[in-house]
Amino acid sequence: MGGVSGAVHAADRAERVPKQDRSRATRQRLLEAAVACLAEHGWAGSTVAVVAERAGVSRGAAQHHFPTREDLFTAAVEYVAEERSVALRALFPERAGADDRHAVVAALVDLYTGPLFRAALHLWVAASDEEQLRGRVTELEARVGRETHRIAVDLLGADESRPGARETVQGLLDMARGLGLANLLTDDAARRERVVEQWARLLDGVLDGTPGRHHG
Amino acid sequence: MGGVSGAVHAADRAERVPKQDRSRATRQRLLEAAVACLAEHGWAGSTVAVVAERAGVSRGAAQHHFPTREDLFTAAVEYVAEERSVALRALFPERAGADDRHAVVAALVDLYTGPLFRAALHLWVAASDEEQLRGRVTELEARVGRETHRIAVDLLGADESRPGARETVQGLLDMARGLGLANLLTDDAARRERVVEQWARLLDGVLDGTPGRHHG
Repeated sequence: MGGVSGAVHAADRAERVPKQDRSRATRQRLLEAAVACLAEHGWAGSTVAVVAERAGVSRGAAQHHFPTREDLFTAAVEYVAEERSVALRALFPERAGADDRHAVVAALVDLYTGPLFRAALHLWVAASDEEQLRGRVTELEARVGRETHRIAVDLLGADESRPGARETVQGLLDMARGLGLANLLTDDAARRERVVEQWARLLDGVLDGTPGRHHG
Repeated sequence: MGGVSGAVHAADRAERVPKQDRSRATRQRLLEAAVACLAEHGWAGSTVAVVAERAGVSRGAAQHHFPTREDLFTAAVEYVAEERSVALRALFPERAGADDRHAVVAALVDLYTGPLFRAALHLWVAASDEEQLRGRVTELEARVGRETHRIAVDLLGADESRPGARETVQGLLDMARGLGLANLLTDDAARRERVVEQWARLLDGVLDGTPGRHHG
């Protein structure tokens, strides 16, 4: 927000806030369009110009917000990942016990299906081939991964001071990522639901720590 | 091999078998070069011509073996996946019990790191964008997936008639795939080892269950 220099006429003042709102809305439209574009067309088909057109924003305005292609797409994946994290926390305002652990596992797995995962996957794969993208995506991936792990620990009510709890949650998130990959070419929802059900049951035994607690 | 028609001179006969050997060797070189190429340069940078050059094979010979780019790369991923399956079975000639379950899980997870996984990943991602590749890769993926599942069930000594056993093994393979993805941009070996250890432990509890631990 900061200070505004020079004389400001009443009319300008009235326009100032809406202008900032518009700028924020433009940025948001660009980020959302970028993720959709990446998910649909992959890295090769995703440029600032294509995204600007999709978002209904001039190319100049797009470049003002995101000077480079790398800026735009890494910001886009991070933005949408944050949106999803917030939504996930809102879904379970309280730490989950065994009762809704199945729902939590299903919601965590859902993070890895859909357009955001497809977009992120395209970005990862492109980054594995392109040096100038690699560093930024690695960093982004680490940040998003840490945040997702934190959320998973909270929502599952996992006590990470217990041996194996941390690795159990990590493995669960790896499984979620793998399930996302399995869903890339075909609709894998039915199988996924059975796997989620079984592993949510296994987690109950591990995280609640009554060894030998079994299927209900 | 079939019958050979017409009069066959002694010299021709002597050359026949080596020629078939050479043809098979050429095919194999092309397949291995194709996987390496896909792993390093992605789908966009992988053409029959590039692979032929890498394999030291004429473009005509390459096209004789694989008329289209799709033929070459799907055959390559399938070939290498089969090679790896055979190697994996050879590593554990007997059904595993709890004793070497950790080793089996580690070996299964290893299927999803390294050049084959990178190559397959590039192929999947390209197939998700390209209609003409999609059907073939989906079919290939299903075939390879079934075979990997069968091997995992055998090596882990899982009794699929027990409720949840099938989904447990599936989830494990999904986790392995997710771990492969996590290894794409950075060396994730240390974390992966801890996750493998913990999940191998979880499997022991599930697959051995209460009584009825049965292995050779």
